[in-house]
Amino acid sequence: MLADPLASWNEGVAKQAILAFITKATTAESADFVPLAERIAVFDNDGCLWPENPLPFQVAFAIDELKRRLVSEPELAEEPMVQAALSGDFAKLLAGKHFDGLMQILAITHAGMTADEFGDAVQAWLQTARHPRFKRPYDELTYQPMQELLSLLRAHGFKNFIVSGGGADFMRVWVERVYGIPPEQVVGSTARTKYELRDSGPVLIKTLDYLFVNDKQGKPVGIHQFIGRRPTLCCGNSDGDQAMLQYTTINNPLPSFGLIIHHTDAEREYAYDAETKSTGKLVEALKEAPSRGWIVVDMKQDWNAVFAET
Amino acid sequence: MLADPLASWNEGVAKQAILAFITKATTAESADFVPLAERIAVFDNDGCLWPENPLPFQVAFAIDELKRRLVSEPELAEEPMVQAALSGDFAKLLAGKHFDGLMQILAITHAGMTADEFGDAVQAWLQTARHPRFKRPYDELTYQPMQELLSLLRAHGFKNFIVSGGGADFMRVWVERVYGIPPEQVVGSTARTKYELRDSGPVLIKTLDYLFVNDKQGKPVGIHQFIGRRPTLCCGNSDGDQAMLQYTTINNPLPSFGLIIHHTDAEREYAYDAETKSTGKLVEALKEAPSRGWIVVDMKQDWNAVFAET
Repeated sequence: MLADPLASWNEGVAKQAILAFITKATTAESADFVPLAERIAVFDNDGCLWPENPLPFQVAFAIDELKRRLVSEPELAEEPMVQAALSGDFAKLLAGKHFDGLMQILAITHAGMTADEFGDAVQAWLQTARHPRFKRPYDELTYQPMQELLSLLRAHGFKNFIVSGGGADFMRVWVERVYGIPPEQVVGSTARTKYELRDSGPVLIKTLDYLFVNDKQGKPVGIHQFIGRRPTLCCGNSDGDQAMLQYTTINNPLPSFGLIIHHTDAEREYAYDAETKSTGKLVEALKEAPSRGWIVVDMKQDWNAVFAET
Repeated sequence: MLADPLASWNEGVAKQAILAFITKATTAESADFVPLAERIAVFDNDGCLWPENPLPFQVAFAIDELKRRLVSEPELAEEPMVQAALSGDFAKLLAGKHFDGLMQILAITHAGMTADEFGDAVQAWLQTARHPRFKRPYDELTYQPMQELLSLLRAHGFKNFIVSGGGADFMRVWVERVYGIPPEQVVGSTARTKYELRDSGPVLIKTLDYLFVNDKQGKPVGIHQFIGRRPTLCCGNSDGDQAMLQYTTINNPLPSFGLIIHHTDAEREYAYDAETKSTGKLVEALKEAPSRGWIVVDMKQDWNAVFAET
């Protein structure tokens, strides 16, 4: 007997629907066949492939970067927004129409260095930082059932893309090693870099110019701009993914599939997505799911494992 | 005997250098081995994979679009910039710091419609328009030697990307059919679309907001933003490609290869790239070539065929 490719998924509606779609999409005689080139699968990252609690991991990185930088740049501690970030006062960072506080933190931690220097900082952080609850490196906390789904789709000719509000430069450092997804299949929030030819060679300096926030209605916009065709499979976990679920599944001339990861497991992970103030709020998309035929994964019921064993 | 994979290339330095690089890059025991995931090849399009004379083909499209639109929107003829475009007065379109004239033509022909409507217009144009000199559909005028090079690289595990100043939305309509390059491997000039969920389904409305011009120093910027890693092979034909040639080859920790297509054949194609006012000017990059080891292809000498036979 063949090993179950979705071994961490309990039998149920969600697992059956996933397997049925993949079978139909890849069976040439099926009415729901999807040509190889059109097997574009898009996945949100935070809360979909790995957790986004107690803080989105990139925010944890930014705070740890502030702490690291304070050692050599103690004057940073005088900035009110740095103080807010270090004390966890995110309301203050997100206040105002243009999120001036958050932008100031991003300007310190995500701009001014070369793209390579930034990548090295992310790499170093992943090697040393530990998640406060699970006490493991952040990149060991990917969801095992989602890793299985990524592998199964890849084995069936799907090209997996990440389409996340997270920074593309942050994710591209580790996605290939962690998910088997190459950097060129990452659509994230981006800003324009600046090219310079230095004596040491060409560099790209990170800025916050022309910031593109790849979230909510920005997700179909990002998919069009970076991928250039409509996905046939979309998986998200929050209202930030609602627009890309619509874009993938509504009146798509090709067969398509929408999947929502519903965070219902406070014991093994977190149950937070009904909170309307959470970054991972799942209210509107959940309401829309039945009429669109989007399959909702109940983490507590549908997954027999959450993280990979150590 | 195996067929020559570069049959349209004459024996010479350029052909030998290309074959030698591909062999070394894909031989595991070679000191110049390039791991599969890093075989990222980037190609300019206009003047590199197809001609850019007498006008860049996308400009020909825009002018034909103006003519088509004038039938139902005769009031367009009153716009001075439309008159300039139709009479070929490109100096007027390109005058001023912000290219207001050109932007106005782009606003009429490249914005305001849905992405699908724009794609349909490009498709329809390719079916009817003919190149003024060669009397063939524009998409039949790709360079046969470059098609062979794309195929040879693909057969050796290279992922071919187009990195062009042309519009991504313009190119993505036909690149898969014409070059075997999927839309998601196109980096071009882009602007942000606007997502709307209409009764008919989701649409993306084209705008000119946040215009990104993927040319000159913008090319390494675009490569970083869209691909997220440094290419190991780069092919261009003008000073607009100089920065991406630098980015690919200077102090790249991996073996790399730079190639320049030099337009020297007025008889079979065009010899124009020494003209400093040409859009395809090749002066600075040609000067830099010897010191960087970039291989220069002399179209007249190195190619025994230019276009595919009909």
